[in-house]
Amino acid sequence: MTKHPVLINGKWIQAPEETATFTAVDPSTRTTLPDLYPVSGKDEIETVLQAAHEASMTMTTLSPDALANFLEIYADKIESRAEDLIRMASRETALPEDPRLKAVELPRTTNQLRQAAAAARERTWCRAILDTSHNIRSKFGPLGGPVVVFGPNNFPFAFNPAAGGDFAAAVAAGNPVIAKAHPGHPGTSRIFAEAALEAVRITGLPPATLQMIYALSSENGFRLITHPLVGAIAFTGSRHSGMALKTAADAAGKPIYLEMSSSNPVFLLPGALRERGTAIAKELFNSCTIASGQFCTKPGLVILEHDLAGKAFIQEAVNIFLNSRPGILLSENTRAAAEIAVETLLHYGARIIACGKSPEGQAFSLPNRLLMIPGNVFLKNPNPLQIEAFGPSSLIVTAESQSQICRISHALEGSLTGSIYSHSGRDDEEGYAHLVPGIRTKVGRLLNDKMPTGVAVTPAMNHGGPYPATGHAGFTSVGVPSSFMRFTALHCYDNVRSQRLPPELRDKNPTGKMWRWIDGEWTQRNA
Amino acid sequence: MTKHPVLINGKWIQAPEETATFTAVDPSTRTTLPDLYPVSGKDEIETVLQAAHEASMTMTTLSPDALANFLEIYADKIESRAEDLIRMASRETALPEDPRLKAVELPRTTNQLRQAAAAARERTWCRAILDTSHNIRSKFGPLGGPVVVFGPNNFPFAFNPAAGGDFAAAVAAGNPVIAKAHPGHPGTSRIFAEAALEAVRITGLPPATLQMIYALSSENGFRLITHPLVGAIAFTGSRHSGMALKTAADAAGKPIYLEMSSSNPVFLLPGALRERGTAIAKELFNSCTIASGQFCTKPGLVILEHDLAGKAFIQEAVNIFLNSRPGILLSENTRAAAEIAVETLLHYGARIIACGKSPEGQAFSLPNRLLMIPGNVFLKNPNPLQIEAFGPSSLIVTAESQSQICRISHALEGSLTGSIYSHSGRDDEEGYAHLVPGIRTKVGRLLNDKMPTGVAVTPAMNHGGPYPATGHAGFTSVGVPSSFMRFTALHCYDNVRSQRLPPELRDKNPTGKMWRWIDGEWTQRNA
Repeated sequence: MTKHPVLINGKWIQAPEETATFTAVDPSTRTTLPDLYPVSGKDEIETVLQAAHEASMTMTTLSPDALANFLEIYADKIESRAEDLIRMASRETALPEDPRLKAVELPRTTNQLRQAAAAARERTWCRAILDTSHNIRSKFGPLGGPVVVFGPNNFPFAFNPAAGGDFAAAVAAGNPVIAKAHPGHPGTSRIFAEAALEAVRITGLPPATLQMIYALSSENGFRLITHPLVGAIAFTGSRHSGMALKTAADAAGKPIYLEMSSSNPVFLLPGALRERGTAIAKELFNSCTIASGQFCTKPGLVILEHDLAGKAFIQEAVNIFLNSRPGILLSENTRAAAEIAVETLLHYGARIIACGKSPEGQAFSLPNRLLMIPGNVFLKNPNPLQIEAFGPSSLIVTAESQSQICRISHALEGSLTGSIYSHSGRDDEEGYAHLVPGIRTKVGRLLNDKMPTGVAVTPAMNHGGPYPATGHAGFTSVGVPSSFMRFTALHCYDNVRSQRLPPELRDKNPTGKMWRWIDGEWTQRNA
Repeated sequence: MTKHPVLINGKWIQAPEETATFTAVDPSTRTTLPDLYPVSGKDEIETVLQAAHEASMTMTTLSPDALANFLEIYADKIESRAEDLIRMASRETALPEDPRLKAVELPRTTNQLRQAAAAARERTWCRAILDTSHNIRSKFGPLGGPVVVFGPNNFPFAFNPAAGGDFAAAVAAGNPVIAKAHPGHPGTSRIFAEAALEAVRITGLPPATLQMIYALSSENGFRLITHPLVGAIAFTGSRHSGMALKTAADAAGKPIYLEMSSSNPVFLLPGALRERGTAIAKELFNSCTIASGQFCTKPGLVILEHDLAGKAFIQEAVNIFLNSRPGILLSENTRAAAEIAVETLLHYGARIIACGKSPEGQAFSLPNRLLMIPGNVFLKNPNPLQIEAFGPSSLIVTAESQSQICRISHALEGSLTGSIYSHSGRDDEEGYAHLVPGIRTKVGRLLNDKMPTGVAVTPAMNHGGPYPATGHAGFTSVGVPSSFMRFTALHCYDNVRSQRLPPELRDKNPTGKMWRWIDGEWTQRNA
């Protein structure tokens, strides 16, 4: 078996003989994949951090064009490794090669890198503010330390710590990245890091622009993120791991951006169900079971009034779930956690009202399941009943009245998204108006007549939300260039001589096109 | 003695008989002032929070004009109480009535409120982003919970939790405020709250727009800030208290913005000292002793090369400090903490090279003092030697070489500011270029040829900086409208019907003038 090296300061370094190792598993067969990956130790962390610090100091002096070139050439290199990436990722995650990996996630990933490059080149993202009368000028700039990125299991490309949205944002903002690969797809991450290293060499960026390690003990994970040289941390994954990292980072004064878990409540107002309940039942099923329910924006909670239309909707949904075939889950851990979540829901009074076909063969899998709980029972234990069941299930909460729906909305934790389906005319306007004040500040993205899965990479996106969905409701992890802001600090220049200012803050507009806030207006002119 | 009530939900409520009380002290005479103020208990906190929650829900639906009207009428009311405020504040803090309180701090305070009102009315601050092709739109909006503001002792007006910059920012962004008055100036805070209540009544804002309590046990302080209904916390004060609040808020997942302490390093490059050492010595003395050194931006650390010009500069500074008269400090606590800080510096190898005239009379006071330490001794214990001595003293670090200056810069903690004085020609360009990469990401505001005291209220200001100067390097507590961002969340609207969108996100520009980012450019047009 090949034991793979880690990427430190531009070199692939073999770990010492005695290093602990792990392997990935094919989720469709439960067979162990042949490659061995190392668990990195304390000394490697120190080496990685020193190299990252040097890279940081260099990157603060680089032009945005240099960063953009790197991101673009990296996107090209990824495309030239596309076949390897798709084959490896499909093997490690059991996600379908096509359309999921090939037609959707890989293009999204290279698109994110290219969008980040374009935004870096364009420069408006840094929010240059010029007060020419006081000669005080400010912009957002790099942190002066690396960003440590922990990627999740469910998007081996688009959220990969060595190539995904966090990586693109951190580098575009001028920071090196220390990627902690997800142990579910180490081979995929390795191919990305190889492609990144090629792009680093071609563009002459510091060798430690991207460094990658595969696994760490908890102790060494905490050691890494709390190190004085670290600039910030980004994590996408479970609430349990996220909270442990948050506690450590907070105590060390390190900014940490977490995307942890979300029940993504969907409110189905009576008029909408009367008008188009059947269509909504199909939408719910599709959104709940896409990628076997392993999306952070899966609709985990569905709230509706238990009137005639509500009952009919439930019957429709039950029928669809009952006849459905199970998908493959990412790992035994994912399967077990989803099962525990469903058991938790049952323990607090939910019952299963539809269970799809049972899995066959060796794959990690669970049947698609629909659960139900009366509103008054939900309100007795609203917190455990919002546990994220990361898998193909949703919990329907049946409310007795509009006012109970409002009480349920007030009992919700912070979520990434909140959806409200309403009548296409004005039948639900009153219900909508009652709901919104309670929901608006509980969710990052509020949707109308639309399920929450499907996260467009647009500057207007918010893939974030109030705690505990994330660690801070003011930041998004998807959407260029808003996602950059997590990895920046506000840099003010007071009476600094013109030639010493960053080009974005000099009187002359550095590109002739970037937008700056000069003395009270957004403008592309010189100061 | 009058026992004063607290302001809860628009009413002045007398605390129960058995409530603990405290009094303020006149720092110029150490005499106890006659008024009694209550220490609020658990039940009051719960009442305050419930009222604040209701106010929050109402305020999310108010137009920016309503908030702006309130802020403007409040500014007028403050001016109509100016005499009372100035007399009371001077008595409670011993800060001079004129120019400090009357000509500087009061106008700054009303100016902040009016700037915040203008920015709220103008609306550009909320960063509306419209992606019309996806129909995804986002803006920053209120938190949905009150902001708890803890004000400091040193700015009874401009940072008062019931009237200062945090208050203005929180309300302009649509959040109610729970003000925890500083116990050093309860009477001043009371007058502000009276004026605010008048403005609330005139403008019809929710009665709990501002609530005020004077004191809390530590336990109840933690209870307040970690309560589920709280939106965010703002604190300006000592590192010790700030860190305790941060730990509690972090564990509860509450955003907390802290301004804790800062050594504000000033680098004096050799060319500058050769050229104008005498003038710089005067600037240093003034900046160090203004308001008896009780500014968060006081230059606590001065770093220079110990060459001929450096030695001459030190001699000039010594002469100025030696002959100087002491000012009055805010409290016995302040005096004792400043004394402990100086003792800490002495313990780690600094020595006092100039001590001004000794205080006479009863006032809380300390002589103006200049300390010195060799660079190599500083580098042995750089952290304790960056303790904030909040009072009239500065520590000069004498370096052997430019490269030692760079090592010192790398050993600095996060600060609000960092100043570099250099030759007016090009003599110091190389030294400057060496220094900047290390300094830039360590400070919020980088100054050239200027002492750090003096914080202009401009949109380009950053009164913030890396931990531990504050809790997050991406936010500023001074500067409208940037300071609002601390008290907002990112609100995204995906496919939301037009009439349900906030006016700032509809196709039609709500004012005809606000700037919005529409499909790739900043514009004042309709979408």
